[in-house]
Amino acid sequence: MKIVHYTQEELVPVNAEGAQNTKMRWLIAQKDGAPNFALRIFEVEPDGHTPFHMHDWEHEVFVVSGKGALQTEEGDKPFAEGDAIYVDPGMRHAFKNTGDEPLKFLCIIPHEDAAPKKSANPFADESADNC
Amino acid sequence: MKIVHYTQEELVPVNAEGAQNTKMRWLIAQKDGAPNFALRIFEVEPDGHTPFHMHDWEHEVFVVSGKGALQTEEGDKPFAEGDAIYVDPGMRHAFKNTGDEPLKFLCIIPHEDAAPKKSANPFADESADNC
Repeated sequence: MKIVHYTQEELVPVNAEGAQNTKMRWLIAQKDGAPNFALRIFEVEPDGHTPFHMHDWEHEVFVVSGKGALQTEEGDKPFAEGDAIYVDPGMRHAFKNTGDEPLKFLCIIPHEDAAPKKSANPFADESADNC
Repeated sequence: MKIVHYTQEELVPVNAEGAQNTKMRWLIAQKDGAPNFALRIFEVEPDGHTPFHMHDWEHEVFVVSGKGALQTEEGDKPFAEGDAIYVDPGMRHAFKNTGDEPLKFLCIIPHEDAAPKKSANPFADESADNC
């Protein structure tokens, strides 16, 4: 079990090629015992962005504050605070801050580059509503 | 790909035994093509709580607004906006609103009741910082 305010986790620069003025924190990861996926928060300055790239795993994102655009091969898709964003595996993408304030978003990734799986969890298919 | 404001997804009551004044929305789920895990938001009224229960899968949680307590077998652990919470598989727990305003938190669950896996994804083990 773990309860931590996001500001208590280390803020580390994103140094990947193509990234600009972006930092992130690992909130829940394998070090915490999480068996399947990791929860991170990204903090992107007003002129910042993540790399325009692709990979074999998905992103599930929630925008905590600020506004931005999801850069795709079909153009930029705007988003703002309170938006949930799903990025498919294999889809080229970048997250850009298009506002005047820091953009903060959660980004969840799987530990493994997993193929689609059939659900064995009744709480994961919208047939249940528990927590 | 999907971009949706959380308020655009249906708010459905949590009717599980032991739940009180709690509703939730499925933000990203298998219907969206998400292969591994589901992102939901829970909205708990001031006198509300989720069931005190356990199951074989983990929760990764981020508190969007409000304050509450994680009920555990070792007592209540307070939390507030901006906290990340990890609940281990097999740990008895409930989320309770302890404030005067609605408590809203994201809760991510795996599609499968998965056992711990070795990472094959360099972006999931804190050795990389990409998005």
